[in-house]
Amino acid sequence: MNQPQVFTLRVQYRSNSDYLANLVSIAENYKGTVLNAELKKLRADLTGADVVISVKHPEDQKWIEKAVNQLSGGDIVELLEEIMLLHKGGKLETTLKNPIRNKEDLSKVYTPGVAKVCQAIVQDQAQAYELTTKKNTVAVVSDGTAVLGLGDIGPRAAMPVMEGKAALFKQFADVDAVPICLDTKDTEEIIAIVKALAPTFGGINLEDISSPRCFEIEARLRTELDIPVFHDDQHGTAIVVLAGLLNALKVCGKNIKDVKIVVNGVGAAGISVSKMLLHAGAVNLIGVDREGAINRLVSYTRTHWSDFAQITNPNLETGGLSDVIKGADVFIGVSAPNVLKLEDVQNMAKDPIVFAMANPTPEIDPAIAAPHVRVMATGRSDYPNQINNVLCFPGIFRGALDCEATDINDEMKLAAAEAISSVIDPADLHEKYIIPDAFDARVVEKIRIAVAHAAFKSGVARKSLLIGVK
Amino acid sequence: MNQPQVFTLRVQYRSNSDYLANLVSIAENYKGTVLNAELKKLRADLTGADVVISVKHPEDQKWIEKAVNQLSGGDIVELLEEIMLLHKGGKLETTLKNPIRNKEDLSKVYTPGVAKVCQAIVQDQAQAYELTTKKNTVAVVSDGTAVLGLGDIGPRAAMPVMEGKAALFKQFADVDAVPICLDTKDTEEIIAIVKALAPTFGGINLEDISSPRCFEIEARLRTELDIPVFHDDQHGTAIVVLAGLLNALKVCGKNIKDVKIVVNGVGAAGISVSKMLLHAGAVNLIGVDREGAINRLVSYTRTHWSDFAQITNPNLETGGLSDVIKGADVFIGVSAPNVLKLEDVQNMAKDPIVFAMANPTPEIDPAIAAPHVRVMATGRSDYPNQINNVLCFPGIFRGALDCEATDINDEMKLAAAEAISSVIDPADLHEKYIIPDAFDARVVEKIRIAVAHAAFKSGVARKSLLIGVK
Repeated sequence: MNQPQVFTLRVQYRSNSDYLANLVSIAENYKGTVLNAELKKLRADLTGADVVISVKHPEDQKWIEKAVNQLSGGDIVELLEEIMLLHKGGKLETTLKNPIRNKEDLSKVYTPGVAKVCQAIVQDQAQAYELTTKKNTVAVVSDGTAVLGLGDIGPRAAMPVMEGKAALFKQFADVDAVPICLDTKDTEEIIAIVKALAPTFGGINLEDISSPRCFEIEARLRTELDIPVFHDDQHGTAIVVLAGLLNALKVCGKNIKDVKIVVNGVGAAGISVSKMLLHAGAVNLIGVDREGAINRLVSYTRTHWSDFAQITNPNLETGGLSDVIKGADVFIGVSAPNVLKLEDVQNMAKDPIVFAMANPTPEIDPAIAAPHVRVMATGRSDYPNQINNVLCFPGIFRGALDCEATDINDEMKLAAAEAISSVIDPADLHEKYIIPDAFDARVVEKIRIAVAHAAFKSGVARKSLLIGVK
Repeated sequence: MNQPQVFTLRVQYRSNSDYLANLVSIAENYKGTVLNAELKKLRADLTGADVVISVKHPEDQKWIEKAVNQLSGGDIVELLEEIMLLHKGGKLETTLKNPIRNKEDLSKVYTPGVAKVCQAIVQDQAQAYELTTKKNTVAVVSDGTAVLGLGDIGPRAAMPVMEGKAALFKQFADVDAVPICLDTKDTEEIIAIVKALAPTFGGINLEDISSPRCFEIEARLRTELDIPVFHDDQHGTAIVVLAGLLNALKVCGKNIKDVKIVVNGVGAAGISVSKMLLHAGAVNLIGVDREGAINRLVSYTRTHWSDFAQITNPNLETGGLSDVIKGADVFIGVSAPNVLKLEDVQNMAKDPIVFAMANPTPEIDPAIAAPHVRVMATGRSDYPNQINNVLCFPGIFRGALDCEATDINDEMKLAAAEAISSVIDPADLHEKYIIPDAFDARVVEKIRIAVAHAAFKSGVARKSLLIGVK
C-alpha cells in the first residue's frame, strides 16, 4: 500500500471565512498535495468545494479528516474516494451519432421524417438491423443474484458491474451495450422480460445470475429468441479456458484426446468448461464437487449433476479430489481457495497443467505450485497466464452482431477459443505465455472473423461477413 | 421540391471492369454530382461501393437508376436515400465517460475495484443515484401500438421513433435515454416489465402506447414505482398547450377562469389537456368527441369518458362541435383534419383562440382561419406558434432527475407550463409569438429550476436543487 492515495473532501463553508485556506494548510502539514479544488457558490454567503487531495500513506487521510473536522466556518459534507469518483454518476453515456442543430435536423431525426424509416421496417422487419441500433447493441442483463464474489446483492448494487461490462464491450469491440438490472428473481418472469425486450437488441449477454436458474433461463431464451443469448459466466469462462488449454497442451506436446482432465467445482462454470472441452475432443474428463467425483452410477438430486454424470468420467472413478487427481494431466479449478494440495500436484502425470481460477485466492498458491507444474494459469492479473473473460465476450458478440446471428452455438464458441489461442504465434508459445493479453488488439478481430465464419457455416448467420473489408 | 436531393447507390462490380467510371459518367450526364464513393474490396475480383449522388430534381434520380441498371460489369445492390442514411445503424451510441486504457484502468472500472462500489450501494441503496447511471438515465418505453400517425406498427418499427426521442433528450437536456420497445401489448405484462426495469433508471418516459391501456399503465406505475413515470403523449402535450394558452390569454386580455374552452377529441391527449387546464383554473371546459359534447347526464361505456364527464361541462351543454363552439373563447383540437368549419370559428366569442393540433393536417387550415381568429397555433413547424412536445419533456425530466424526484406530479406539470410561458418576455408577447422556439436555450433551464422547486415543495424530491450552482 505504498501507492499514493487520492480522496476528495466535499465541503461547504461561509464564503467570507478562512475555511478553505485553513484546509489547504492542514493537508500540507500532513504532506498531502491538493490536486484540485472545484468551487461552487451555493448561496450568496455559502460556498461549496470538492477538494481533491493526494496522500502518501492511507493513515494520513484519517489525520487530515480529523483536523479539518475541527475547523470552524464550514463542514465536510461528504468524503469521496478515488475509485468512487471514477464510478460517480455512472460510467456510461448515451450519445448522438449526429447532432440535432436546427428544425431541419429535427424534422429528419424525429417527426415527420422518421415515419418513412418506421414504414420501411413495417414492410420488412429485417430492416430493423439496418435502420436502428439493434445492429450494434447488446443488453447486459442481470438479476443481481450472483455478482462477483459478493453473492445476491440485488439489482441496484449490481449496476456498477453491469455498467463496467458494458464499458468493456464498447472499449474492446465497439459494441454498444445497455446494462439492465432486473428487480425480480423469478425464472419465468426473467424469461418473459428478456423475450419482450428482444426487439430492441441484437444480442443478450446474461450476467451474474445464480445457478441453477441460469441454466434454464439461458436454455429457454436460446430456443425462444431469434437473437444470440450468451451467459458469460458459463461460456465466456469455458471458451477462454479451452483457448489456454489448447496452447498449454501444445507446450507440453500432449493431445486433448489422450489427456486425463480433472475439473474441480461442478457449478455453472465447471459444467460449461467441461462441455466445451468434451466438444473440443476431450474424452477422459472427471468432475469433482463436495460429494467427490461425479459418477453416473450415483443418483443426484440436482439434475445438472445427473446430466453431467452421463457425459463424463468414462472410467467411473470414485473418491475425492486427492484420489482422482492421481495421474491426471490437467487440473481445472473453478471452485474455492487452497483446495488443491502440493501432494495432489505431485501425484499428477508428467508435465502437469494447473488452471487454478478461484478468485481472488486460487485453488493452490502459484508460488507453491510453480516448481512442480509445467504450465500454471490463474484468474489473476498479477501472475502469468491470466484466464480473463474479457478476452472472449467482446469479440464473440462483435462477430455475432456483424453476421446478424440468431444464436451463439457450440461451433461459434469452439471457433472463438481456437481464434484466441491462435493469436499467439507457435514460435512465441511458452509455459508463461499460453494466452494473449486482454489488451492485445489482435484478439477481437481474430474472434470476430472466426465466429462469423462458424455462424455462417453452421447456418445461424443472417448474412455473410464481407471478407477483407476495406 | 427544388432542394437538391441526395441518394446513395450501393453497387457491386467486377474489379477489373469500367462499371464505376461509367456510373460516374451517367450521373454527370443527368447533371448529378457524385459527392462521395466509398470502396470496399469484397473479394479479389469483386468490389463494392457506396456512391453518394446529389441531383437537382427527384426525377433525375429515377433516370440515373435506370441507366445504371443497364450497365454491364456490376449491379445496384441497394438504393439508400438521405433520410435513411441518417438513421442507418441507429442514431445512438453507448459511450464511456473514461477510457479503459490498461490493466490498472480495468481493475478499477471492473473487478476487483468495482466490488467496493457495489458494496457501498448494498449498505445504502440511495447511493445508486450517486454511483450508477441511474441518476441521469431515462427509459423511453413503448409497445409500438400508437406510433405517430402510423398506429400499431409493432416494437421493431417503433424503434426509430424511440431512438429519436432519446436523441432529443440528450441534445436538449443532456439526459441519457435508452429506447426500449416491448414485444407485448398485455397491460399487466408491460406494468410488470417496467417495474422490473426500474432499478436501472431514474425515470420512465412512456411513449406511443394506445388508449385506454396507456391510462392504466401510467397510473399503476406511478403508484407502484419510486421513480417518475410520465406518458409524454398525454402530459407533454397538455403542458405545452397550457403554456401556449396562458400566453394567448394574456395577448387577448382574458382570464382562464372566465373563458369558455372547447376541447375537440377526448382521447388520451384531450383528457390530459383538459385536466391540466382545469388544474390551472379553467372552469367552463367542454369536451367533444364523435358522440358530441361529453355530458355527465349521459352514461358512457368507456370509463375514461364517464370520469371525464364528471369534471367538465358545468352547464351541461349538448350537441356537436358546431353547437358547443358558439360563444367559445378557446378551441383546442387534438382530433382530426378539417373538422372545424370557418362558420364555427365565426360563431366563437370575440378574439377567438384556436389551437388546431391534428398532424400533419390541422382541424382547420390556418390560411382559412387566420383572418378570423386572434391567436392561432398548430402542431406544425411551418406556421407560427408550434405546439411541440420537445419544449417540455427534456426539461421536465432534467428537473425531476436533478432533485431525484419520486414522481412527476400535477404541481410539477403546472410549474413546467408556467416556466415555458415565462420564457417569452411580456414585452415580446404577440399573436404570432405565444410559445418559445424548440431551440430556445432558455427553455430547459427555466423548466428544470421550476420543476425541481415544485417537486421539493410538494414533497416528492429526494434532494433539493442547489440554487445558483456555479
